[in-house]
Amino acid sequence: MKYLGIDIGGMSVKCGVVEDGVILHKKAAPIRPREDAEVIVSDIAALVFDTLEECGTDRREIAGIGVGCPGSVDDDTGFVRYCCNVNFVNTPLAEMLAELTGIESVRVSNDANCAALGETLYGAGEGARNSVLITLGTGVGTGIVVNGRLLTGNRSAGAEGGHITIAMDGELCGCGKRGHYEAYASATALMKQTKAACEKHPNSGLAKYAAENGIDGKTVFICAKNGDKVAIETLNHYIEYVGCGLVTYANIFYPEVIIIGGGVSNAGDALIVPLEKYVTENVFGAQYNPKIKVVAATLKNDAGILGAAALCLDGR
Amino acid sequence: MKYLGIDIGGMSVKCGVVEDGVILHKKAAPIRPREDAEVIVSDIAALVFDTLEECGTDRREIAGIGVGCPGSVDDDTGFVRYCCNVNFVNTPLAEMLAELTGIESVRVSNDANCAALGETLYGAGEGARNSVLITLGTGVGTGIVVNGRLLTGNRSAGAEGGHITIAMDGELCGCGKRGHYEAYASATALMKQTKAACEKHPNSGLAKYAAENGIDGKTVFICAKNGDKVAIETLNHYIEYVGCGLVTYANIFYPEVIIIGGGVSNAGDALIVPLEKYVTENVFGAQYNPKIKVVAATLKNDAGILGAAALCLDGR
Repeated sequence: MKYLGIDIGGMSVKCGVVEDGVILHKKAAPIRPREDAEVIVSDIAALVFDTLEECGTDRREIAGIGVGCPGSVDDDTGFVRYCCNVNFVNTPLAEMLAELTGIESVRVSNDANCAALGETLYGAGEGARNSVLITLGTGVGTGIVVNGRLLTGNRSAGAEGGHITIAMDGELCGCGKRGHYEAYASATALMKQTKAACEKHPNSGLAKYAAENGIDGKTVFICAKNGDKVAIETLNHYIEYVGCGLVTYANIFYPEVIIIGGGVSNAGDALIVPLEKYVTENVFGAQYNPKIKVVAATLKNDAGILGAAALCLDGR
Repeated sequence: MKYLGIDIGGMSVKCGVVEDGVILHKKAAPIRPREDAEVIVSDIAALVFDTLEECGTDRREIAGIGVGCPGSVDDDTGFVRYCCNVNFVNTPLAEMLAELTGIESVRVSNDANCAALGETLYGAGEGARNSVLITLGTGVGTGIVVNGRLLTGNRSAGAEGGHITIAMDGELCGCGKRGHYEAYASATALMKQTKAACEKHPNSGLAKYAAENGIDGKTVFICAKNGDKVAIETLNHYIEYVGCGLVTYANIFYPEVIIIGGGVSNAGDALIVPLEKYVTENVFGAQYNPKIKVVAATLKNDAGILGAAALCLDGR
């Protein structure tokens, strides 16, 4: 069976023809995010037809369309409630796209959820039934797969996993509450921690490197690799913060695999190896249960298309 | 369709004939928890036949047996890996019970999971599709229902929800790690907090009441109701600890309802009303989403039988 996976971004939309977890052909097109929803959806429908034509696939071969969209999506109805980057407000996206394409079965979910489903089934998760994807970027996002299906919560309002509390009354989070995971584990938080370490230890290798090159999410990894003690200490704290949240997820879900995505995951083994060690040492009942793997996301930009297409498979 | 629900405890086992979420007849019998597993299971099978006979139900009318068992259970295979209170070690409980009763379909899960399923479908959850049951007792237990099915994790090792971290490097938990929810929200923790408040404020009404009556999970509720300021302050802190964990669960699962069970839940509205307020004020995206209800468990001892019987319904 062939499916279409559509990944909507703030500037462009990607569409792929997917069969058995493989993208046969994909195509991207710019969107006009501030136009009326009707215009945006008709641009997407045009991309669908272009992609099918280039791929030499007839519309009637497509068993369903899956769409990943940023913002708040009601998975059950295919409505997009609101979306910061694209002008969708209570937009019946599934219905509109079905009408314009003539393909009846259209499923919509949040784009981060789709990426988690794609990585779990076809990427770093290697077909796991249960997984947690943690995205360490500007914020912290989560996508959770339980028995092969996305966990979305009532009216798809759940999986806001950057906003679990790991330190009551702790650091202020972007959402206005204190002590949330995102305030400790995001790339933004790592940069703050790096800046604080530089100020506290102005003569450290870290501070000197930062003065010359500025601070980003890689700074502490580069300086730790060069053996700077302050950088190593800062990184160890960061690993504990990230690990603390992973253990909470592990104790609730006991997934086969935890997948780390987002910009920070580009650090590779310097991040992944100590995180897996932390989880193994701290998860409840580790001595009786299979080890939980911690791995970096692998699919990059294709995760969204593959996961969106896989929405059509989950049998709801 | 009629099902049997079996609830195994450390001293006795209960069996009920269940139809449409109603217990038609139930019966209890002592068990010999230190005998060989064969003896224990044959006692349970004898209880099954006694219950059926008293109920006037033929064995062939029973579509399946569900069993709630303490300890570590593999839901997929019906094996009990280990159990503190009953002498089951890698015991193929489902298989043994099917053989002895002649009823082929036997499902087994952890007893706390069964209670959560029972409360969700037939008790305080009023048929919710998504719920979280938090048991505030000696420890903190959790049972989580997602789309009408129990969340158990890979090899049923998940849902260890008392061991999520709410305060990194905080209070020592019974499991040996620091900062876990159980170390702040259990009845045991509440009694510790009450004791500490009495020691800090020896002239308070709370301290005087405790000196006369001793300390248990009700002490602080009784004295707060009487208007003692130290008791009110202690209770408010406890509500924040419990609430903090509830919000973490709310942000991950966004359930329709959070159900509070265990001894502490007997405090009723003095606990439940401020907890619901805390969740409403702190859950992510509350302004866009339906309010999450917080309610006390209602089924008490029948939750286990009803939930065990419901294991047969969840279609795995």
